[in-house]
Amino acid sequence: MNKLDLNCDMGESYGAWKMGDDLAVLPYVSSANIACGFHGGDPGTMRKTVAAALEHGVAVGAHPSLPDLLGFGRREIRLSPQEAYDCVVVQIGALAAVAASQGGKLHHVKAHGALYNMAARDTALADAICRAMRDVDPGLIVYGLAGSELVRAGQALGLRVAQEVFGDRSYEADGSLTPRSLPGAMIEDADASLRQVLSMVQRGRVTTRQGTEAEVQADTLCLHGDQPGAAQFAKKIRADLEAKGVTIATV
Amino acid sequence: MNKLDLNCDMGESYGAWKMGDDLAVLPYVSSANIACGFHGGDPGTMRKTVAAALEHGVAVGAHPSLPDLLGFGRREIRLSPQEAYDCVVVQIGALAAVAASQGGKLHHVKAHGALYNMAARDTALADAICRAMRDVDPGLIVYGLAGSELVRAGQALGLRVAQEVFGDRSYEADGSLTPRSLPGAMIEDADASLRQVLSMVQRGRVTTRQGTEAEVQADTLCLHGDQPGAAQFAKKIRADLEAKGVTIATV
Amino acid sequence: MNKLDLNCDMGESYGAWKMGDDLAVLPYVSSANIACGFHGGDPGTMRKTVAAALEHGVAVGAHPSLPDLLGFGRREIRLSPQEAYDCVVVQIGALAAVAASQGGKLHHVKAHGALYNMAARDTALADAICRAMRDVDPGLIVYGLAGSELVRAGQALGLRVAQEVFGDRSYEADGSLTPRSLPGAMIEDADASLRQVLSMVQRGRVTTRQGTEAEVQADTLCLHGDQPGAAQFAKKIRADLEAKGVTIATV
Amino acid sequence: MNKLDLNCDMGESYGAWKMGDDLAVLPYVSSANIACGFHGGDPGTMRKTVAAALEHGVAVGAHPSLPDLLGFGRREIRLSPQEAYDCVVVQIGALAAVAASQGGKLHHVKAHGALYNMAARDTALADAICRAMRDVDPGLIVYGLAGSELVRAGQALGLRVAQEVFGDRSYEADGSLTPRSLPGAMIEDADASLRQVLSMVQRGRVTTRQGTEAEVQADTLCLHGDQPGAAQFAKKIRADLEAKGVTIATV
Repeated sequence: MNKLDLNCDMGESYGAWKMGDDLAVLPYVSSANIACGFHGGDPGTMRKTVAAALEHGVAVGAHPSLPDLLGFGRREIRLSPQEAYDCVVVQIGALAAVAASQGGKLHHVKAHGALYNMAARDTALADAICRAMRDVDPGLIVYGLAGSELVRAGQALGLRVAQEVFGDRSYEADGSLTPRSLPGAMIEDADASLRQVLSMVQRGRVTTRQGTEAEVQADTLCLHGDQPGAAQFAKKIRADLEAKGVTIATV
Repeated sequence: MNKLDLNCDMGESYGAWKMGDDLAVLPYVSSANIACGFHGGDPGTMRKTVAAALEHGVAVGAHPSLPDLLGFGRREIRLSPQEAYDCVVVQIGALAAVAASQGGKLHHVKAHGALYNMAARDTALADAICRAMRDVDPGLIVYGLAGSELVRAGQALGLRVAQEVFGDRSYEADGSLTPRSLPGAMIEDADASLRQVLSMVQRGRVTTRQGTEAEVQADTLCLHGDQPGAAQFAKKIRADLEAKGVTIATV
Repeated sequence: MNKLDLNCDMGESYGAWKMGDDLAVLPYVSSANIACGFHGGDPGTMRKTVAAALEHGVAVGAHPSLPDLLGFGRREIRLSPQEAYDCVVVQIGALAAVAASQGGKLHHVKAHGALYNMAARDTALADAICRAMRDVDPGLIVYGLAGSELVRAGQALGLRVAQEVFGDRSYEADGSLTPRSLPGAMIEDADASLRQVLSMVQRGRVTTRQGTEAEVQADTLCLHGDQPGAAQFAKKIRADLEAKGVTIATV
Repeated sequence: MNKLDLNCDMGESYGAWKMGDDLAVLPYVSSANIACGFHGGDPGTMRKTVAAALEHGVAVGAHPSLPDLLGFGRREIRLSPQEAYDCVVVQIGALAAVAASQGGKLHHVKAHGALYNMAARDTALADAICRAMRDVDPGLIVYGLAGSELVRAGQALGLRVAQEVFGDRSYEADGSLTPRSLPGAMIEDADASLRQVLSMVQRGRVTTRQGTEAEVQADTLCLHGDQPGAAQFAKKIRADLEAKGVTIATV
């Protein structure tokens, strides 16, 4: 395989508060995960972000979150699978309507922050999120951490799944991400990062922190849009990947 | 015409707080206006209310509001038509997804509280709400105060429109509702209320507070679900109307 | 010791939504824990609840919560001690101002729901809550689960502490509450409940689910205000306790 | 009079979203109006902003708002004077507790955005805000638009009042601010702005858009902290005023 999707979280401003530089990043990504109001993304921001994504031919995805504006969806909330299901249904619906109102269509769903992390390891929560997607629109594609419970849940329900990998995080021998608390968790060297992504895309393998190799399926690469230099980084990694023969396109 | 829709606001509980007795009222109405989270109606309540409406064969409508949980959507907020448009799009979408997840479909949209009242008289706001409906799904039916700007805006955009009348409110010579602040605004006698509704349904006319007659088109009658005895009242008026030969069915 | 405080959560309505029957319960309790807006208790409800408590000569306490209106503060949110500290400071301040505006004064602080439960076992969180109290007003009294980390944290900081016990929950051999998931966790028999409370108040001991006795200091008894018959129950237990010679008074 | 307070709105970030550059502006102002959570200013931001203000010896004021995070408190909400009173009480209390927890004390209250504008012309609302202040702490100083209803309400209740003027807005013949919709409403020339402020401070008079002079009492000047170059502007106007013999100090 020599094809990769580049996805980025977007539309995370809220009312008077701005976050990220979506317009600068959009030319370099193929999929946008757009906040749906629960951690960011008020109705007007949703409209403007969907419009910009459609204009750039970038796939429009929903980026549902736990209900936590104050914590930006980054704090774990102990809720039931049913509560998670309900929250995901309405967020998908909200963004789908924004897309429909502009002649667009929802392409995928990527959970945000704590919901993403919890769903990566909690089978019941992962299943709830995927059932919400299937029940609203079985054509929606699950974006989930490569090898996670969310990926398994989507596959079990017969949904299309895109396995997500990271270029700026190291991997453990079992194919999981190195916890941020451990030394070496973050890959800051751009060349090392590029090598890791190429290895995952072209060989389906990653060299782990332990020095072993682990299998990782890389369908989509997570780019960060809210950091200084985000657009420059996106531009460079896209150019570097294309120079190595990787086609950048949505799933 | 001898046909009338009975609509009622529903799903206005929020989290641990309950409002109304939806299950008791549902057997007697033909359309449910279901809160979408901005003034009431958390995601779980939306799911349960849609399920109950579908079970009773009652038409599922969205009941979008100004963003004001604290004020239950009853306080006027001076927002732009664009802000109103955006708020309505996401609320329609949220409820449409809940309906879709249960194999149902959204039938109509009735604005809530202050948004309903503002849209009855503010042309630009009325137009914004109707454009939001059309852009998301041109098959949605506008429920609006009979003779109001919202009705005109829906008609101008080519949407189907249901004109809403009240049995417990008196009318002025120009066909508008008597402001609540005036004496005689509320009709408390059940027989007088029934007579008024029958006159509007069967003759398209209402006897006004001034003693004159005004033309009023009655497509749908507003029932209140959050008052003591709401279900009893709904049961009685439905039986009384049917006894007079009026067919109760959604628009 | 032959004295007991009866406390009850109050002011948990929010906007148009009502919860509990505070006015009916107030004559029978000696302390009110009043919601501060984070799980219930809008500003108007806070005012009305404080006014009613002052009128009945009931001690006014703050009832701070995790920020979770949708979950009524019952869902655990993984936040930092600093975040908890900040949330408690502003909630205490809000209620203190309401009390001050009516010539009253804040007497105690009892954490709500998930925050109460988390603070009972999490030392850092318990310490954060007590530091928030001390930093705002060192005269505030900590209401905490008897024998919990919150009680210890308050004592360590030199605050006055009221240990809270339950009449409708059974206790384990180590003095902790029986988890609700276990059979026998709830005591539904009114006589058994009264016996348990009397034993705790008069002997400082409780007969546990295992049949052993555990030491429990009973300064204040938790009554529930949001259940059917809450006022009747409060009236009866107060009368029964007084008949056995227990003085009901705030801490 | 040759003394002027420079005040600036601060602490208007919310959770992950940043607004303004408070630390850069603080060295040049004498009073900070700190958001209290209703339009911005989460509990952590409140703590950090109060700490920074205390460190710079800047007077700590509450900056209460209508409850409207989404609209940043800039949209008029039609609420009752009682609702406004309640909202102001809890916001003052929240910030007072944050100040107390750091050994500080609340100095003044300046309403935010739409609440400020509504209170400038609505006598009942102005009175409600000032009663809230008096009832919580009669030592609090009202910051209000010079010549407005809010100023009159504060004086009528016996509160200390600081009349606020603007250097970047022109004035009408009656002493009111030129509405922003009119040409010439904004003064963009720094020298003209300085001249206007000096005239108000030293002569109690302003040259109006009509070319006449109007009396305006200038106790405090409003600086904006959320615009590019805010700190540079604050630094310059303070230096310029001091060079002209004006003492910069809080009220």
